[in-house]
This record gives sequence, structure tokens and C-alpha cells, in this order.
Amino acid sequence: MKREAIKKALLDSYETDGGINHLDGVNLPAQESVNAVARDCMHLLFPGYFEDTRLEKGKVADLVDALLLRIEERLEMEIEKCLKFAGDARPATTARTLTFEVLEQLPDLRKLIRTDVEAAYQGDPAARSNEEIILAYPCVLAISLQRFAHVLYRLGVPLLPRMVTEFAHERTGIDIHPGAKIGTHFFIDHGTGVVIGETATIGSHVKLYQGVTLGAKSFETDNNGNPVKGVKRHPDIGDNVTIYAHATILGGDTYIGANSVVGGNVWLLDSVPANSIAYFKADDLVIRPRQKKESLVGYVEDWVI
Amino acid sequence: MKREAIKKALLDSYETDGGINHLDGVNLPAQESVNAVARDCMHLLFPGYFEDTRLEKGKVADLVDALLLRIEERLEMEIEKCLKFAGDARPATTARTLTFEVLEQLPDLRKLIRTDVEAAYQGDPAARSNEEIILAYPCVLAISLQRFAHVLYRLGVPLLPRMVTEFAHERTGIDIHPGAKIGTHFFIDHGTGVVIGETATIGSHVKLYQGVTLGAKSFETDNNGNPVKGVKRHPDIGDNVTIYAHATILGGDTYIGANSVVGGNVWLLDSVPANSIAYFKADDLVIRPRQKKESLVGYVEDWVI
Amino acid sequence: MKREAIKKALLDSYETDGGINHLDGVNLPAQESVNAVARDCMHLLFPGYFEDTRLEKGKVADLVDALLLRIEERLEMEIEKCLKFAGDARPATTARTLTFEVLEQLPDLRKLIRTDVEAAYQGDPAARSNEEIILAYPCVLAISLQRFAHVLYRLGVPLLPRMVTEFAHERTGIDIHPGAKIGTHFFIDHGTGVVIGETATIGSHVKLYQGVTLGAKSFETDNNGNPVKGVKRHPDIGDNVTIYAHATILGGDTYIGANSVVGGNVWLLDSVPANSIAYFKADDLVIRPRQKKESLVGYVEDWVI
Repeated sequence: MKREAIKKALLDSYETDGGINHLDGVNLPAQESVNAVARDCMHLLFPGYFEDTRLEKGKVADLVDALLLRIEERLEMEIEKCLKFAGDARPATTARTLTFEVLEQLPDLRKLIRTDVEAAYQGDPAARSNEEIILAYPCVLAISLQRFAHVLYRLGVPLLPRMVTEFAHERTGIDIHPGAKIGTHFFIDHGTGVVIGETATIGSHVKLYQGVTLGAKSFETDNNGNPVKGVKRHPDIGDNVTIYAHATILGGDTYIGANSVVGGNVWLLDSVPANSIAYFKADDLVIRPRQKKESLVGYVEDWVI
Repeated sequence: MKREAIKKALLDSYETDGGINHLDGVNLPAQESVNAVARDCMHLLFPGYFEDTRLEKGKVADLVDALLLRIEERLEMEIEKCLKFAGDARPATTARTLTFEVLEQLPDLRKLIRTDVEAAYQGDPAARSNEEIILAYPCVLAISLQRFAHVLYRLGVPLLPRMVTEFAHERTGIDIHPGAKIGTHFFIDHGTGVVIGETATIGSHVKLYQGVTLGAKSFETDNNGNPVKGVKRHPDIGDNVTIYAHATILGGDTYIGANSVVGGNVWLLDSVPANSIAYFKADDLVIRPRQKKESLVGYVEDWVI
Repeated sequence: MKREAIKKALLDSYETDGGINHLDGVNLPAQESVNAVARDCMHLLFPGYFEDTRLEKGKVADLVDALLLRIEERLEMEIEKCLKFAGDARPATTARTLTFEVLEQLPDLRKLIRTDVEAAYQGDPAARSNEEIILAYPCVLAISLQRFAHVLYRLGVPLLPRMVTEFAHERTGIDIHPGAKIGTHFFIDHGTGVVIGETATIGSHVKLYQGVTLGAKSFETDNNGNPVKGVKRHPDIGDNVTIYAHATILGGDTYIGANSVVGGNVWLLDSVPANSIAYFKADDLVIRPRQKKESLVGYVEDWVI
């Protein structure tokens, strides 16, 4: 029977083509559980915004109780899996200790995230209220969860931080690595396509538009041809910098000085001093009448230079 | 106990770091309810496409009945919350009146949206049928819901319109502000990363590719340093214009004249006359043999100019 | 009553504005069912990664049995709908035959997809393990499902292949047409905004960054003004090519020769020979001190050239 033959071929392929199956291995973190932690965190950070009904002040303590307990249980379980997966030698109680070290940061994270919401209000004339920003601006989810994942990253938890930021990436198109260090008052407008690499640093009062990349150019490899991990390879961005849509800024030696503005669509491998503006020369742009290709009947002259 | 301490710190932070919590406030619109309205609208607009089973003609009236009633109840409730939130002085019956004013537009919206589907078929050689477009082209969701949200926007409903378009943005990567005015036969191919600002206007028979931005450049601030809201700051696009991938076009004084074509990846702060073509000079592009960095053993020459 | 009037107007519009309703037509493929097939396929391809609990080796055969049966039933049903929709003249048993032809490819697909995961590990210094890549890199979903959809596409199944890749597009922002032919060891980093057209071909060991477009420029139309379908109109990419973020490469005659590197943000309508590097001249970039518009009080000099 065909199904039996396909089944046998698949089981054989699990034996011969390893590396992308995970059988009898240690337990891996479950995406659904990670997603639930991420969602519960957003409730804790912005109480009253994501509940189905109005949140009365008298009931906040109970809500916080319930959310904290749920996050704590799931987070401890997932951290434990991640430590075992990575062969972490720390004792069994470590997952619990790390879980509380993460949760203890939540009040400070709120202070930080509050500055991000303020920056969105200051930075976008279309924003009519803080409520509109929290309910409808994707950067709130992406930045808040990166700040949360960054705490996990700094504590040396493997796997999990990246799964948290990928939850946000899937929903917002904003891909910020958990390793990136980000100052206060960070605003990303629209956001789709933004990429911020692991070793990037970002000052305070920075504004990015959609499609901005703070990425790597070349990187070193070891004797086996594998990339050397953990080397500084993404840019540093100073305070009060604005970067317009689809600017691609690459390299670990590249910095954008404070108070500078980078124009859209630039491809930037060099540093920009403070108080500067960087953009492509306008006279490189050709604007001329369209030419008809008269000889081609039925030809859509969509792009014929 | 640690959990108690964290709980207390969080509750304290809700007191001291306001602005991002919403306790004892008026009821805010619920994202899940807004999403349900958006989904039900897609069913009403495209009957027979998003049902699980084949839709028989004899059962359409019942389906419309059920969908309309559901949308009506949810929409009225959410509009009422939004009006209260914004301190709108209109009487309590207003939410109901507005709800019906929105629903009355649905048949006209269908006429408009039908032209968008036609434009997708005309504009993409890969499209094999209207069915393929409706089932698998993200622009259908993004444009249809923006047209719906635009009705809410014109009626002065706060918060809600932006939540509807953000529902579409999350699913498609296409971010069209509810305020944008868009003509007939609008097609966005692929779409990820498209951003269209609040005060943009778009003619008929316009085609955009992925990553196109119709955005703002600078904006005015009031005496408190807050951006002045509602000022014209996004471009105007004429009829029959095609804009290629990742073109960034900014400014309220910028217009692209009818029948013009804008090349990909341009950064455009100036207007383009009708019947023109705008692109970066080809001779600004360097194409040369790669150089080997012989001295660096194990170096991946990924990007070494 | 208002609701009755709106209902009547909608029903009338279903009669007069056809083309975007589907009443009494043949059954269309159901998105939810297609999504379930896509998810189950990911489980079969990467056993042990997407289950809620640890997958023991002794239980793999049962899991494969259950998944195969589920995919088989749904796939046969959806393929049958698609064939009927397209008026395919093949006999009723064809859907079943095609279903098994698809499933038979799964073991070979695993071999291919394994090379993609290897390429991600080799290509990204931030990747710490294969597990991290499979759990948190969006390209794994996008490329794996495109390879699956490509099998359906080659077998001439209408509608369905594009719905499978659109499932991936919605989740990852990566839009690869099922028709594209892709070699081994394919890596897309970050990925949001990547677009690869129907007639593109991609060699082995190719690396793309976010926002890269392999698209079409102009296309021919028939006597009715409709685009001619199926013509070669997207680029060919050689082996070992790297293309940086937001490069837009268009045209069916455009090829990028083996071992070449294309810089970010270029707009490329011409071919690049093998072993080359292509980028915008650095001296086209202006970097200069920002100017203050002293005369404008309260003006945010966000972008004032």
C-alpha cells in the first residue's frame, strides 16, 4: 500500500537524514507555551488594555496574582528545558532562580516601556492618544517583548529569548534580536521589515521607520568554516538619531553620531559624525518623460528605460 | 516570598508609572471584538469565499441576516466605547446611528472593491483567476478593510478605524492609515512593508509594489513640543501611476503626476510631472570583479569593498 | 427597518456586482484546511520540534501514521476541489493519485530542507544551534512550505500551491511563488519583505537578506489587454550568490552570475557577471552637517535638506 511505503520512507529518512529531527532528545521549549508567556507579560505590563472587559482597580491585585503565577510556572518549565538542552551545568534550582530574576525586572521594564509610548506620541502626528498607540501600534509589542527577552538573554538563558522576539516578529514584521541594547524613548513607526542585529546598540530618543536594517556585513569563520559566534558586527546608534525608511546600515565599526538624521533607502557601511545628515544626492535621480515603444503592439510599458 | 514582593512592586508601579495602565477608566475597544467585525465584513463583502462549505444561493439571505446582526451588535458596542473614551458629546443614540451609516456603505464598498480585484487580475501575470486573487492575495484583505475603516474615519469615530487597519497590517504587512483617500482599481502586489500615511491621496488605477512608502518628512510642533495633528503631510498620487518596490516618497507637497512610473528603491522628496519616469541613474551602480583579501585566512569575503 | 434595507441592498449587489461573490459555484478550497495541511507537513518534516511534548522514538511510527492519514484526507479533498474549479478534465481518481505523488516526495524534500538548515547555521553568526534555527527562524517555514507547494505546482494543481505559500507569507513576510525553482542550501536571513517571482530560478548556496525582490519589470498583454500568463519574467540567480537587504532585481533576462555579491538597496535591471560585486558608489552619498532653519520657530527639523 502506498501510505505504508511513504511511512517507511519517512521513518528511514529520520534515521539517515538527522539534524532536523529531534527524537528521544531532551525536551524542547514549546512555542505555544512561549507565546502564552509573551501574551501574559503584555497584560502585566499594560494592565487594563488587553482584557476583554473593563479592569476595576479593586480587582487588579487578583489579576496580577493570577498572571504572575501563570507566567512563573510556564517560564520556569521552559527555562529548565532550555538549560538542559544547552547542557548547562548549573544546578536544578537554577531555572527557578532565573525565573524570579526575570520577573523582578518587570516593574523597571514598565518604567522603560512607558518612555517608548511617550516617544511614539511625540514622534507621530497621526497618534491621537496613548491608548491608540498601545492598542494599535505594532512597535509596542515588538519593543516591549524585546526588552523582556533581553533580560532572559543577559541571564544567559539559551533558545528562549529568540523564541520570544520571533513571536513579536511574526506579528509585527519587526525583528529585534534579544541581544541588542536599547536606550529609553525608542520609537519605531510602522515597523514592517525593521531588523536590528544581536550586537547593535541604540541610544535614547532614537526613531526608526519601517524597513531600517542595523545589520552585519562580513564576518570571520573558524578553521572549520563556521562563523565565529558572538563577535561585535552590528552598528551603534547615538542619542536623538532618526533613520528613515529602508536605510540599510551595516557593520560593527559603523556608528551614527548623536542628533544625526539618515535618509531613506541609503546603503551605509561607514560612520556618520554627530549632528549630520546623510542622504543620496538628488541629482542622481533621473526624472524624464516616458518613451513609447511604438513598435511593440500590445506591450505594457511598465518599466522600459 | 518573592512572588509577593514582585506583585507589590508591580502594583506600586501601576500607581507611580501611569500612562500605560488603564484602570477604572472607560471601557476600551476589545481587539478580539474588532477582529471579529473585520472577519465578518470580509464574509459579507465576498460571500462564498471564506465559508467552510459551499454557499448555496438559497441560503445567502440567511447568512447575510446572521452576519449583519452580528456586525451590528459588535460595531455599535465598540463605537460607543470609542465615543465615550474620546469624551464625545454626542447623545447616547449616536453609536447606533453611526453603526447603520457604516453598514449602509457596504454595497457601495463592494462596487469599489470589485474594481480592486479586477486591477489585480490585470496587473499580475501570475494571477490565474479572480478566485486565486481573493483567496491568496493579501492586498484584498488590506485594501478592503482600509476602505471599511475609512468610512468609520470619515464619520469621526476615534480609535476603532486604526484598530481595523492594524488587524490587516498584522496579517499582510500592509499598513494603510484609515485616513488615506484611495480611488478605484487599486492594486498592491505582494505588499509586505507598504506604508500609506493618513493624509495621502491616491488616484484610480494605481499599482504599488511591496515596500512602497507614501510617508511624511518633517512636521510642525506646538508650543509644548508636541506634533501638530491633522496637517497635510503625505504625498498625492495621480491616476495610472505605477510605483516599484521600496520607493520611499515623502512630503505633503509631493505629488506624482498621472501616468508616471517611479522606479524601485528611490528616495523621493520632490514631485514628478505627469507622464514621467523617475529612477536612479544606472551609471551610479558599480559592477566590478570581487577582490580577494588574500592576507586574511578564514575570512568570509561577504562584503568587502 | 434599516437592517432589512441594508440586507436587500447587499443581496442586490451580489446579483449586479458579480465577480467577487461565489454562490452556487463549485466548492473552493478552504483556507483552514489548507493551513492544517501546511502545519501537519511541518510536523512530518521536522519530527520532535513542533509537538507539545517530547517525542519518543518508539512513538514516531504512530505519529507518522496519524499525520500522513490526516494530510492525505485533507489534501485529496482540496486537490479535488481545485481540479473541479479549474474544469480539469482528468478523471475522478486523479486527486487521489496526485495526493500520493505529493506525499511520496516528502522524504526527498527532507533531504533538501536539511541543507537549508545547514546553510542557515553556516550563514548566520547569531545562530547557536540547529534547534534555534528550526524553532525561531522564519525562513524554515517559508522555504519548506515553498518546496512542498512547488511539488503541487509541478503536478499542475491549480489554486492550492499559492494558498500554501500565502500561509507562509502571512506568518513570515516572505513571499515565494510556488513556481520558483530553488537549489540546495538556501538561506534567507530575517526575511520580512522578500519576494521571489513565479519564473525565478535560484542556484545552490544562495543567501538572501530581508526585503530582497526577484521580480518582473514589464510584461506583454494579449489583444484584450490582459497580461500574457506564464512568460519568463523573473531573474536567474547563480550558485553561491549573496544579495543584501532590499536589493530589487527585476526582469526575465537578468541573471546574477555565480559567486557574485549584490549590495543592499540597489535597483538592478541588468545582469551581473560571475565573481562580481555590485553596489551604489559611496560618493553618491552626501554626509554633511545639519542646517538649522532658524526662522521657523517650533519646527522639528526632521528632514530638511
